[in-house]
Amino acid sequence: MLLDLSDFAARQNRSLRVKMDEFQREGRLKHLIFASQLELEHLNRLKRLADIIRQLSKTKKGSDALRSLLSHKRAMLYFTQPSTRTFLSFMAACQILGITCNEVRDPATSSEMKRESPLDSIRMFSSYFDVIIMRSPEAGFSECCAYLMNDLEQHEMRSVPIINAGSGSEEHPTQALLDVYTIQRTFQFDSPNGAAAGRLPELRGRYAGLNTGLNNKTYLFCGDLGRGRTVRSLATTLINYPPVRMFFVSPQHEKLRLDNALRKRLEAAGVEFHEFDSLDATLDGQPILSLTDCLYMTRIQIEHNTKEDTAALAEMDLSPYHLSPARLAQLRDYAPILHPFPRDSVVQEIPTVIDADPRAMYFRQARNGMWARAALLVHIFDVSDQLLFLHNDFYGG
Amino acid sequence: MLLDLSDFAARQNRSLRVKMDEFQREGRLKHLIFASQLELEHLNRLKRLADIIRQLSKTKKGSDALRSLLSHKRAMLYFTQPSTRTFLSFMAACQILGITCNEVRDPATSSEMKRESPLDSIRMFSSYFDVIIMRSPEAGFSECCAYLMNDLEQHEMRSVPIINAGSGSEEHPTQALLDVYTIQRTFQFDSPNGAAAGRLPELRGRYAGLNTGLNNKTYLFCGDLGRGRTVRSLATTLINYPPVRMFFVSPQHEKLRLDNALRKRLEAAGVEFHEFDSLDATLDGQPILSLTDCLYMTRIQIEHNTKEDTAALAEMDLSPYHLSPARLAQLRDYAPILHPFPRDSVVQEIPTVIDADPRAMYFRQARNGMWARAALLVHIFDVSDQLLFLHNDFYGG
Amino acid sequence: MLLDLSDFAARQNRSLRVKMDEFQREGRLKHLIFASQLELEHLNRLKRLADIIRQLSKTKKGSDALRSLLSHKRAMLYFTQPSTRTFLSFMAACQILGITCNEVRDPATSSEMKRESPLDSIRMFSSYFDVIIMRSPEAGFSECCAYLMNDLEQHEMRSVPIINAGSGSEEHPTQALLDVYTIQRTFQFDSPNGAAAGRLPELRGRYAGLNTGLNNKTYLFCGDLGRGRTVRSLATTLINYPPVRMFFVSPQHEKLRLDNALRKRLEAAGVEFHEFDSLDATLDGQPILSLTDCLYMTRIQIEHNTKEDTAALAEMDLSPYHLSPARLAQLRDYAPILHPFPRDSVVQEIPTVIDADPRAMYFRQARNGMWARAALLVHIFDVSDQLLFLHNDFYGG
Repeated sequence: MLLDLSDFAARQNRSLRVKMDEFQREGRLKHLIFASQLELEHLNRLKRLADIIRQLSKTKKGSDALRSLLSHKRAMLYFTQPSTRTFLSFMAACQILGITCNEVRDPATSSEMKRESPLDSIRMFSSYFDVIIMRSPEAGFSECCAYLMNDLEQHEMRSVPIINAGSGSEEHPTQALLDVYTIQRTFQFDSPNGAAAGRLPELRGRYAGLNTGLNNKTYLFCGDLGRGRTVRSLATTLINYPPVRMFFVSPQHEKLRLDNALRKRLEAAGVEFHEFDSLDATLDGQPILSLTDCLYMTRIQIEHNTKEDTAALAEMDLSPYHLSPARLAQLRDYAPILHPFPRDSVVQEIPTVIDADPRAMYFRQARNGMWARAALLVHIFDVSDQLLFLHNDFYGG
Repeated sequence: MLLDLSDFAARQNRSLRVKMDEFQREGRLKHLIFASQLELEHLNRLKRLADIIRQLSKTKKGSDALRSLLSHKRAMLYFTQPSTRTFLSFMAACQILGITCNEVRDPATSSEMKRESPLDSIRMFSSYFDVIIMRSPEAGFSECCAYLMNDLEQHEMRSVPIINAGSGSEEHPTQALLDVYTIQRTFQFDSPNGAAAGRLPELRGRYAGLNTGLNNKTYLFCGDLGRGRTVRSLATTLINYPPVRMFFVSPQHEKLRLDNALRKRLEAAGVEFHEFDSLDATLDGQPILSLTDCLYMTRIQIEHNTKEDTAALAEMDLSPYHLSPARLAQLRDYAPILHPFPRDSVVQEIPTVIDADPRAMYFRQARNGMWARAALLVHIFDVSDQLLFLHNDFYGG
Repeated sequence: MLLDLSDFAARQNRSLRVKMDEFQREGRLKHLIFASQLELEHLNRLKRLADIIRQLSKTKKGSDALRSLLSHKRAMLYFTQPSTRTFLSFMAACQILGITCNEVRDPATSSEMKRESPLDSIRMFSSYFDVIIMRSPEAGFSECCAYLMNDLEQHEMRSVPIINAGSGSEEHPTQALLDVYTIQRTFQFDSPNGAAAGRLPELRGRYAGLNTGLNNKTYLFCGDLGRGRTVRSLATTLINYPPVRMFFVSPQHEKLRLDNALRKRLEAAGVEFHEFDSLDATLDGQPILSLTDCLYMTRIQIEHNTKEDTAALAEMDLSPYHLSPARLAQLRDYAPILHPFPRDSVVQEIPTVIDADPRAMYFRQARNGMWARAALLVHIFDVSDQLLFLHNDFYGG
């Protein structure tokens, strides 16, 4: 039977592994709903695709060729939760590949006022468009949409891929994808500009055990860890890179600290992690920043505050969660600084004076979002081979 | 003289035939304002175009060729009445043909706040764009815009086609077009899937007199007949297919019943029609559903209720206007079920359990809207020949 | 140091010449922020580009070629001040050149609600897009954005052009550009239609001293001169065409009259100008309209009224600022009538009866906006040569 939301909701309680298998086909992602779906092999393949897309985009001829790749596809960006950055990033990603974009952004569209069911809306979109990229305040809705599409496929009816662009407070898998992509590129240590700039041999001398790649690194997450779905999604994805160590620095407020679900996931995966209440904390007598290979800053999400939260936070000293120049000096001199943005211009968890530091990767990170999301679209539409052929035509085998 | 809205309003009272002639040129539609403009020859030509567009869209090469057809055109979608479905359908139709889309959807645009006249706005759009597709709460406004464009043309000034995407409570000609297109395809009885699936010989054995095409059929309209412009537009268009019989099933509420204008039009055309107050009604002892070749369901449009309407409807039993599985069993086993959508998820005039029935055409109907509207654009921009050449290149003469 | 808004604000007080130099590179505009940047050489080059774009657009083959010119570019239209006309005109201009458009139009975007700084928003846009076209209620903001981009460039970071599509009450340089373009075309006196229609020899007989081009002409500005940034921007640009004479006709209300800044600028440039309080005024015994080569009408911008303004204006007779047919008869018979639009349909500063007069250029002016803005984009993206090659391919050297 089709279109039964209650049945779909029941399926949500099954094991992650079972669900992940339903959302891929022969190792290729059909839908991207959870950050957990981003397994190591996917991350490696997507990085390669993203690098190629980035390279081809540098020339007019290359970007014209890229735009022919999926020029026959039309996307629906269904964003019922306000978003500027993720929305524009997906728009740009589609445009790079020639995909035509359409959008519905009203929280209440006219059809919903006419009491259309959410699944009827989704199926209507799937009648007109070839992929649905959706952001929703309701956790689990994009998952249900993926079930609907799978059921339609089983009935040999028209079905399209679903991409989760942020749902509820839990999942933001494409943010994790672009964060990882930014870290992957930095830890190649071969960038002609940026913090590391091909200085790997020198750096290895100064930082024992430093290697390329994401494994064997320490990641420090700072700020609003409990309410930020980007932290959850990235930390989950980094489990793919053992051995990995994570530091979590947040105010001692129940809602802002590392949440239990993530804590349990990390424990189950055998990840070493430590919690601190200040960027100035030490571990075994050493400042944690001096042990950090990658720093992930976040904003305190005041828009999610209750009255009580606001009162509680007003009494707290939040300066231990701000990246001052003095703290920056402690950070390893190749460590990329990431931030999912926007940053808070009042609080200034990262003051603008730091923007010119070569480790500041947050604007490059935003731009990487385009390449990573375009790579995902290439993967999901199964035109990786065409992209590789195209790249060969331009740059040889 | 140009831009005189009162003069245009006066022209509205002329006979339909005179007006229809003004809106076409040598048998080709210049503007589409009324469903009555869709004469048999147009419907046949548009079906052929839509079929070709649909076929070409199946391959990347075909859809790339389609997008070159009108790539030099820019459309304005001027929707001052909220709409999601029709809007997106037109967007997709334009995109299929390479037409660039622009939109103004605010009921009050900034220029209107600055006291710009509606006709100045339209003429401004016509300065920038090559076709204006408009939905308006005011009956007759799109008609006046077409008069303005005709006057500009007479003065040898820039003029563009107007397409009515729904105006007032009366006209929705492109909905009628896509409804007819869906019925045309079903009554070919050659679909590889769907209700009839090439079973015409067998069906003829069971249903005496069954033939291909829309003539000689019985159409049942159910629901909110008085306030639904789609019912009015489709019933008007079906007059093109004599002999035709129509059943109208609606609550016995003045506003919801078949309205007098349509009743008179059907009488004038000599159409046989019957009114009922339940889907369980009989005619000459036979259940009307067992006599029905095509079932057109509609939603009760509660958003147009006055307080009194709401009170009156609350006292009525509306279940006779819902398609239950038991009623479905009575319907002829090839009869397409259409619905202009959205459907009401609370009332469930068509419960989702029916969606998997092969006669359920409402999602396919939505998708047909793209092809039918793209066909209309090809016709109006007079590139039918180019489309046919293109098709020959791909599939031979 | 980057992103320091206070530093940028300080730079605003430097001389115009210094700032103009910072916004161009080897004579080519990098950003367009002020009308003063439009120097004679730019205006001549842009006219030539606009003429070519217009000509190529006449055929499908030409417009397809045009759309390949900048098909690898993506634009952000960041309009935090409501606008329909300018917005659509820029959209169309981008589309003509194949530039993909994206928009942010909410005065408060979601990121701003999250306390993102305006400059972070701009830099985020510059990460995804290749040009930022912006309209803002704050004077000086687009200037600061241009400084940010210049600083980024100096740090060898990604930087994109900024185009001011209207800022504060002062600047609207692209409106001046399209106004000048419309006048340039009219004063060629070679148009196959329109007011002058190749009648230059005849006209010279009747109007002593009449010549081609914008020099040696009298321009009459009428209406809301003090609050209209289009008047300020156009009058400033016309200083490029000496000898030039300007008539300013406005109500005797402090806010509506020629403002002091413009008065001083005209005096400094040695421009002859006269102020009047009626279109019926005379100069040396002759009706000013009979001395006018170009008439620029404007709307009283009631949306900027304070309560006191509304009261004061209600007591005034505003009919001396309306173009009646009797006044039209006094105007030179080749003089183009311009209006930045929208016009006020209640007040009717230009009644619709005048629209059919061959001197009425205001709708053509709107359409010219597309060509002029497309020319600007070609210039700013430095593909003038490619456009000229393309034109040669079509029409020969």
